[in-house]
Amino acid sequence: MLQSPPASPGMLEHEIDTPALLIDLDAFEANLDTMAARLSGTGTRLRAHAKTHKSPVIAHQQIARGAVGQCVQKVAEAEILAWGGVQDILVSNEVVGAAKLARLAALARIATISVCVDDAAQVEALDRAAEHAGVRLGVLVEIDVGAARCGVQPGPDAVALAKLIAASRHLRFSGLQAYHGSAQHLRLPAERHFAIRAATDATRRTVEQLRQQGFECPIVGGAGTGTFELEVVSGVYTEIQAGSYCFMDADYARNLDASGHPVGLFRHALFVLATVMSAAQPGVAVLDAGHKAVAVDSGMPLVWERPELRYAGASDEHGKLVFGAHETAPRLGEKLRLVPGHCDPTVDRFDWYVGMRGQRVACLWPVAARGGLS
Amino acid sequence: MLQSPPASPGMLEHEIDTPALLIDLDAFEANLDTMAARLSGTGTRLRAHAKTHKSPVIAHQQIARGAVGQCVQKVAEAEILAWGGVQDILVSNEVVGAAKLARLAALARIATISVCVDDAAQVEALDRAAEHAGVRLGVLVEIDVGAARCGVQPGPDAVALAKLIAASRHLRFSGLQAYHGSAQHLRLPAERHFAIRAATDATRRTVEQLRQQGFECPIVGGAGTGTFELEVVSGVYTEIQAGSYCFMDADYARNLDASGHPVGLFRHALFVLATVMSAAQPGVAVLDAGHKAVAVDSGMPLVWERPELRYAGASDEHGKLVFGAHETAPRLGEKLRLVPGHCDPTVDRFDWYVGMRGQRVACLWPVAARGGLS
Repeated sequence: MLQSPPASPGMLEHEIDTPALLIDLDAFEANLDTMAARLSGTGTRLRAHAKTHKSPVIAHQQIARGAVGQCVQKVAEAEILAWGGVQDILVSNEVVGAAKLARLAALARIATISVCVDDAAQVEALDRAAEHAGVRLGVLVEIDVGAARCGVQPGPDAVALAKLIAASRHLRFSGLQAYHGSAQHLRLPAERHFAIRAATDATRRTVEQLRQQGFECPIVGGAGTGTFELEVVSGVYTEIQAGSYCFMDADYARNLDASGHPVGLFRHALFVLATVMSAAQPGVAVLDAGHKAVAVDSGMPLVWERPELRYAGASDEHGKLVFGAHETAPRLGEKLRLVPGHCDPTVDRFDWYVGMRGQRVACLWPVAARGGLS
Repeated sequence: MLQSPPASPGMLEHEIDTPALLIDLDAFEANLDTMAARLSGTGTRLRAHAKTHKSPVIAHQQIARGAVGQCVQKVAEAEILAWGGVQDILVSNEVVGAAKLARLAALARIATISVCVDDAAQVEALDRAAEHAGVRLGVLVEIDVGAARCGVQPGPDAVALAKLIAASRHLRFSGLQAYHGSAQHLRLPAERHFAIRAATDATRRTVEQLRQQGFECPIVGGAGTGTFELEVVSGVYTEIQAGSYCFMDADYARNLDASGHPVGLFRHALFVLATVMSAAQPGVAVLDAGHKAVAVDSGMPLVWERPELRYAGASDEHGKLVFGAHETAPRLGEKLRLVPGHCDPTVDRFDWYVGMRGQRVACLWPVAARGGLS
């Protein structure tokens, strides 16, 4: 089932059906501008991560501000972007299985498609898929720079894979994928510095070893919203893959700067609008948005501009707000904005973005790659 | 976007594209039969909760085994069921907002529709919606029997609401909603007994007070997979609202019986099939199913029949398996079944059920009300 659009352009916020996924367009555009300004003149390009927004509409706004293209995690996401006119797409992890590789290779007829490998068998499988489709695929070697998840070890293992790629008739060696995911959410700047210095050292060493063997890296990619300024100043990374920056979420807002304050570079631009569906208990208001509507894997949502209301618990379809005896109780039927704990999986719960200018609905955009798991 | 069907009937399990949502049909049917057998002769009916399965196909199989109808949490779920031929639907919580109430009332032209209230203003809003649609809606008073979420207090507050409902021209008083959600997951039988005894005492008292005022309760509804046998023996509940029993999940499997063993009444029938997409790190295998594919709000999934593999962490699109140095490492490309920590939100991540008989695909059923948030 596709969800019905919860609003129409011109409506006021209180008229929107809930739960609904709102974008504050002013904040969103400011975030895109801030990122473009931060990268301007650095020589590092943005390849924004579409795992966050799942929308060609948003991808094109990022590209219009200088992004070289988009990252995705899944072939289904690459399809939606390519079909929506995005010309340069990197699948920033491994794709395994003949059926998925055939779909990926087919996309290379209409867009520049790159993908990561961390296993020699995958190089062969990719070469075969590209040959069958009559295309050439870009391939990056993923190296593990701290997450201990995917990727070969930096150094000789990566060079060996690069040689295999370069020797394949239907592939081109496109560089290194070196993303340190867990570093994004380290709260203290010193922790992030330490983690990313180790990552950039390993990446630099690998780039140099590749160069000694005659392999240049057109792409050295990685970094996210939490650390991208560190990767930029390293001089090693050519592309950063930040995604969440366009929306921000409650979890990223807990990252601190050197003075102990939230980093504050980007604004909260994404909200789940919810309605008070029960106010029968003292000190409690129940919202119609539980964890089927707002992801709680990175903590509970916050109530926007109502810090006295605490979203204390999410069940499947209910969110339980609690508040002190002296606070003004939310009214039955009142609509409140929630700041999601984690923007990416929250976006994936909705078929529609409702774009707001102030209190008025300006536009509806489809979350076109929602549910793109495969 | 609707997800592409990940399989076709006749395929073998290893040919299914991943991530995919699998039903072991033998286990699933055994679960339906077990529930029907447990309720047979008790005088308590099953009104199975469709928030779990979101599927008219499954609803009809439950009804064929004696279920009186279905519960849902959302109007969108009620629509999908009614449009799919389900004749008796209870929205087992409050519905707030004129647009939603108009949709709900419209459904009463093709099915028996009931809904809960815990506020006098809602009685008036429901009556107006029913009048506009030219229908009569069944209305249950929700009482709080321990969850401290929705519902008025048992006793006089509930009687006052029942009077309002009975006095409304387009509503009929249908009884009490008395669900103790948090009791479902109490691990020890003594804990569940204690919680449900308090709930049934409060419910019985309210039923008696209603009767003294001349109000009979055609429906006294509540109970879930964790406690339903307690509500049945209480003699107070006329309908139980279990949902998860048809699939089970890793969390419910942690409930213990009096001998300290898992209750074991129902079998694991729901799985997420995932592929090993990276095996580059020693002691680690990365699956293509993270928390966008398998819900982690009630804990990590288990790897089916591979207890030596621990699903140690979920990121958006990756599941990280870890295992000891002496274990057989999963191979790149190998497909593994995961038992979800929580079945309801996991189902909501997929558009298709893949029904399995042993290792072979028997059928595909749509998760028709997936994403039915409104």
